[in-house]
Amino acid sequence: VVGNPAQIVGYADAQSRKLSEQRPELVEPPSVVRGVSLIRLKHVNDLRGDLCVAELEKDVPFAIRRVFCVYNVPNADIRGEHAHSELHQFLVCVNGSVSVVVDDGDNREDYMLDRPWVGLHIPPRVWSIQYKHSRDAVLMVLASAVYDPDDYIRDYGEFLEFVRGSQ
Amino acid sequence: VVGNPAQIVGYADAQSRKLSEQRPELVEPPSVVRGVSLIRLKHVNDLRGDLCVAELEKDVPFAIRRVFCVYNVPNADIRGEHAHSELHQFLVCVNGSVSVVVDDGDNREDYMLDRPWVGLHIPPRVWSIQYKHSRDAVLMVLASAVYDPDDYIRDYGEFLEFVRGSQ
Repeated sequence: VVGNPAQIVGYADAQSRKLSEQRPELVEPPSVVRGVSLIRLKHVNDLRGDLCVAELEKDVPFAIRRVFCVYNVPNADIRGEHAHSELHQFLVCVNGSVSVVVDDGDNREDYMLDRPWVGLHIPPRVWSIQYKHSRDAVLMVLASAVYDPDDYIRDYGEFLEFVRGSQ
Repeated sequence: VVGNPAQIVGYADAQSRKLSEQRPELVEPPSVVRGVSLIRLKHVNDLRGDLCVAELEKDVPFAIRRVFCVYNVPNADIRGEHAHSELHQFLVCVNGSVSVVVDDGDNREDYMLDRPWVGLHIPPRVWSIQYKHSRDAVLMVLASAVYDPDDYIRDYGEFLEFVRGSQ
């Protein structure tokens, strides 16, 4: 059932990585999930305000054809819960915090995104869930294609068949 | 002087358009400033959270090669205060509010961006200033090129020469 917090229990044993507890140079740990990476963005703090930057080629490994923002998500609710067959996504939590589970069918990992200079690259064929949105969370997602409902895999069993059948 | 609020006084007579006071269908008023437009983005409200989307071709009239976010700007401070000779920008205030002045050398206009489903397209050869950031403001900027310091025009007199000399 969509939005049922019980679905998250299955991920309780996922390795949790709260970025704020890591040393800065460890902000890009290698993920055990195929193709997933945590990318440190350019970040400038100055007296006149802060800036984070994601540039093509350098930071974002695909051409950006769509940008969307997700916000006002109730804390108990869950977003995502699907994979894409072709779409690349690059997630930046630009305000507040959000937890993200990524799962390639063999391994899963749980990231907390809580700073705007970290981007999470989720390639196609990775199941993803976003949850525990803080009240003020704004999740920016850069995507490699315009919206295509046929690119979504919304059933986890079907996802497993898809990734295992094509290995 | 950068950051001197006195510089904003010159814009006090600019036409102010607070979007939240407009009817929804008027969210794209034609700007008197050359090439500037206010674009209504796709926006979905649902019980599980809200979403705004900017797609290439449909909403954003250029290829996106850089995305940056500006946040934690003190309210009294000013960002921007420059033009670009080639760069296109698309501004979305995804949290809080910010005021933006656009000026083509002949006309100027003052927009308040206070909702995430409105994008302000600022083409090259337009002087722009951002100010009155709310404490929680997060301004997302989609840009048509990677960072190039040579594309900036930081002096208003030089800007006027540039736009008038090439008309």
